[in-house]
Amino acid sequence: MPQVSKFFLTFGENFRNTMLEDKNTKRTELSEMGEFGLIRHLSSLIKVKNPETLKGIGDDAAVINLGKNSGLVSTDMLVEGVHFDLSYVPMKHLGYKAAMVNFSDIYAMNGIPKQIFVSIAISNRFSLEAIEEFYAGLMLACEKHDVDIAGGDTSSSRSGMIISITVVGVAPNKQISMRNKAQLGDLICVSGDLGGAFLGLQLLEREKRIFLENPGIQPDLGENSYVLERQLKPEARKDIIQKFAEIKVVPNAMIDISDGLASELFHICKSSEVGCMIYENKLPIDQSAYQLALDLNLDPTVCAMNGGEDYELLFTIPMKDHQKVSENMDISIIGQITAESAGIYMLDKSDHVVPITAQGWDAFQS
Amino acid sequence: MPQVSKFFLTFGENFRNTMLEDKNTKRTELSEMGEFGLIRHLSSLIKVKNPETLKGIGDDAAVINLGKNSGLVSTDMLVEGVHFDLSYVPMKHLGYKAAMVNFSDIYAMNGIPKQIFVSIAISNRFSLEAIEEFYAGLMLACEKHDVDIAGGDTSSSRSGMIISITVVGVAPNKQISMRNKAQLGDLICVSGDLGGAFLGLQLLEREKRIFLENPGIQPDLGENSYVLERQLKPEARKDIIQKFAEIKVVPNAMIDISDGLASELFHICKSSEVGCMIYENKLPIDQSAYQLALDLNLDPTVCAMNGGEDYELLFTIPMKDHQKVSENMDISIIGQITAESAGIYMLDKSDHVVPITAQGWDAFQS
Repeated sequence: MPQVSKFFLTFGENFRNTMLEDKNTKRTELSEMGEFGLIRHLSSLIKVKNPETLKGIGDDAAVINLGKNSGLVSTDMLVEGVHFDLSYVPMKHLGYKAAMVNFSDIYAMNGIPKQIFVSIAISNRFSLEAIEEFYAGLMLACEKHDVDIAGGDTSSSRSGMIISITVVGVAPNKQISMRNKAQLGDLICVSGDLGGAFLGLQLLEREKRIFLENPGIQPDLGENSYVLERQLKPEARKDIIQKFAEIKVVPNAMIDISDGLASELFHICKSSEVGCMIYENKLPIDQSAYQLALDLNLDPTVCAMNGGEDYELLFTIPMKDHQKVSENMDISIIGQITAESAGIYMLDKSDHVVPITAQGWDAFQS
Repeated sequence: MPQVSKFFLTFGENFRNTMLEDKNTKRTELSEMGEFGLIRHLSSLIKVKNPETLKGIGDDAAVINLGKNSGLVSTDMLVEGVHFDLSYVPMKHLGYKAAMVNFSDIYAMNGIPKQIFVSIAISNRFSLEAIEEFYAGLMLACEKHDVDIAGGDTSSSRSGMIISITVVGVAPNKQISMRNKAQLGDLICVSGDLGGAFLGLQLLEREKRIFLENPGIQPDLGENSYVLERQLKPEARKDIIQKFAEIKVVPNAMIDISDGLASELFHICKSSEVGCMIYENKLPIDQSAYQLALDLNLDPTVCAMNGGEDYELLFTIPMKDHQKVSENMDISIIGQITAESAGIYMLDKSDHVVPITAQGWDAFQS
């Protein structure tokens, strides 16, 4: 039987403190720190000890030694009203996207996702049919990517829906791409195009506002199916990882673009202790997204740099692999890794060199 | 570039349906199904395909083939106001318990937990110091059990705190104990004692009510530190798993007691297609817990059978291992596995045979 510990000597005290919400103790507001600040702070407190834990916090996924292969584990939490708005996101899309976002974290390590574990908390507002739609979306994504739903948890919630997904994947040890191995002179590449998901969101938010003001008006989403699909039904880039294996290229560094290109460039540069130069005219932006940005009075480059949620892959390769990659893949070369002292810059279309600021989406700013 | 799919042909429709909360579509209330009903229903929709996924949904943890060993993965979501009440649970205890609950799921497979992944959603109500306390509890538990915090996610929430923890563990293939392998004639054993955690909760709830009615009165928790510790600071039974390895016994079936002994007996019996007979006078109940139950006008047996949250291990062993187990371990033999047709019964103290009902805690009943 476990011994009664000293833990409880202060129990009465704890009880009173918590109940009275004692204002005398020090209180640091989370909004002062921001999401990345909080993660940095918590990470600094945590040390990994097991020899199997090759990489803990600090990349797209943790890396666990399994011998010749490594296990890759990543987890994401999505909160209604913070990460998604059910007034315009259909449940099936939500399930699909929640799965894809997780697969993307494994691809960003150059690995293959194998299992997901899906926990949801839901209030009585949701019907069984709504939950079934959510799972239909999850299963569609899993089927496309050969991933199993291998476990999870369900719970009631007091308000709204919360989704927590953990993905487990695998990669041969030699193939893993971390964030912190970008090398001086590497070419910086990005798959697909950028900014579309952000513009899709702007469009949905606009139509929601119009709808709420006048429910009689039908949403006008007509010509913009590309950006809507980018926002509501992103596709994790398994094809890119398969192509890497086929052409035998392992990126020196890789990350997926969830918070925006600028933010991800900062992650790669800071953890690799390098700088970079990006060329504005090389940023891949879909024509319809470009036009929509202008229609909405937004700068297409800002949408591409800071938009987020595109779930494309950002990676760096040595110059020697240039031809192999550019001949075989749906990618754009957008810049080059420089010395750390050179900083993080963009050459804009007017040939001005401008500093890039990390404007990733911050959960604690409102 | 991904093709624009047919997914969006019905998008305008979806949008209007969601926005208008169309009441014409079929709606089944989750409360009609209960938590286990929902899990059963969702599980029936989900098929695993990857050969590495040896066991998906349906046990304490999923089992992933790694060659000679298996990876074990389990996930739990804890919601403020549903699973915990911060008016009397100190943040450090919350972190400690959240970790222990997850370790317990891996021990219930006869495996060793190695890494946890911790996601939290929190509102601005929480200070950095509160979150640090939570992590201090997590880390204390991890240190005791040699587990690494290897990743996670942080998010803001609109109300309250949500915790989602995924634990990854490992076990030699031959050593894994599932729920579905209990054999006719097996002895049914339980570690430690039962009902204490439930009684601790009753005490805390009572003191909370008194406190809210008259904040001047100090909580009277005096003589009850054992049950309070059982509720607020449960200890996952690593010692039992270590002992199994030492005496070379592998339980035929095992599960941890999170929802109450009755509920876990049902899980083992249903998935093993067997029955059982439990002896009321064999149920291990701590003396102080027994007395408190009487003081609170509760039946100590009901507390032990249906209380939950004790995080003890319930397992079955063949008769031949009887002596090895009973000589070496902090366990009680509480009954025996019978034929499925014999049903799930208890012999009470008056020698009456009474049917056991599965009264696990149900998240969707309120």
